[in-house]
Amino acid sequence: MIQPFPIILASNSPRRKQLLEMIDIDFEVKPSNVYEDFNLDLSPEDFVQHYAREKSLDIANKNHDHFVIGADTVVVYNQKILGKPKNIDDSFNMLKSLSGQTHSVYTGVSINKIDEGISETFFEQTHVTFNKLTDEDISYYIETYKPLDKAGSYGIQDWFAVCVNRIEGCFYNVMGFPLAAFYSHYKKYIK
Amino acid sequence: MIQPFPIILASNSPRRKQLLEMIDIDFEVKPSNVYEDFNLDLSPEDFVQHYAREKSLDIANKNHDHFVIGADTVVVYNQKILGKPKNIDDSFNMLKSLSGQTHSVYTGVSINKIDEGISETFFEQTHVTFNKLTDEDISYYIETYKPLDKAGSYGIQDWFAVCVNRIEGCFYNVMGFPLAAFYSHYKKYIK
Repeated sequence: MIQPFPIILASNSPRRKQLLEMIDIDFEVKPSNVYEDFNLDLSPEDFVQHYAREKSLDIANKNHDHFVIGADTVVVYNQKILGKPKNIDDSFNMLKSLSGQTHSVYTGVSINKIDEGISETFFEQTHVTFNKLTDEDISYYIETYKPLDKAGSYGIQDWFAVCVNRIEGCFYNVMGFPLAAFYSHYKKYIK
Repeated sequence: MIQPFPIILASNSPRRKQLLEMIDIDFEVKPSNVYEDFNLDLSPEDFVQHYAREKSLDIANKNHDHFVIGADTVVVYNQKILGKPKNIDDSFNMLKSLSGQTHSVYTGVSINKIDEGISETFFEQTHVTFNKLTDEDISYYIETYKPLDKAGSYGIQDWFAVCVNRIEGCFYNVMGFPLAAFYSHYKKYIK
């Protein structure tokens, strides 16, 4: 498939980089410096789309001829947005509260190419149900995998997979980038 | 976590090997030579459990002091079990028939350790819904990824991810090994 323009991923996430590589996209990485304010009074879908757009536009405005992809992921449980844990205790408490329960993962994606007027923003929601976690499982995970860089404090693509009972929706959305939803928007532009 | 016995994976699948490595299991690979007869008159859950057990026992009977893991995965659509495609045409037709539809993936897992009398067999089912696939998408995928070694003719962990609208259940089951279900059986034996 022919990629008609240069692409930038406006994200520092190694998982998003890995996922875009997986679907044969050629791109460079230029992380944006947008600060996320978790006190912003927005619904989860508006929150992730807002920050996906901010991140994408931050880079797109300096690279008018590039197709710039921004994304933002949060975990939502009991109507509360969970970002990355502040420290190990926060990580433990986050996982403990999600044990045996179903939460949602939202990812917003925004694609912008200024010189052609391309601008689309969308989001994807996936339901994730955890098994009942023992304290030993949680401690083993935190000590071994140090998930402090992850929204909700877990990676569904590492050892923590054994703790995930089921999901409903897009798996890659939980990893931080909804591949199928992205592709359905992106394919309009490829030959 | 302390692994109390040596483990063998009785499977040639690089995906199963990758998944067991992901959850910090130490094992060696010894593929069994069990022949699968797709004309066997069994339900999908009985079919995958039957062959998972056959594969595991084939190796366990020669390695009494090893914990031997066997697994078998099939795709089921319209009450019909789909194994691996016979050739490129079969692959194209399989994906075309699954386009826009929901099918099921069944994996049977069997764990056996002869000298301790450990013997458990279970299965997991995941529902997978494809987007509507264009002929171009299917042809691109088959030419680029040659999915002839895969049940149902796709890998949810490669480019084909963009074609998967949603799943319900365990993602890793679709890759060929239900990590969470396995762990819930396996953890009884670890310290």
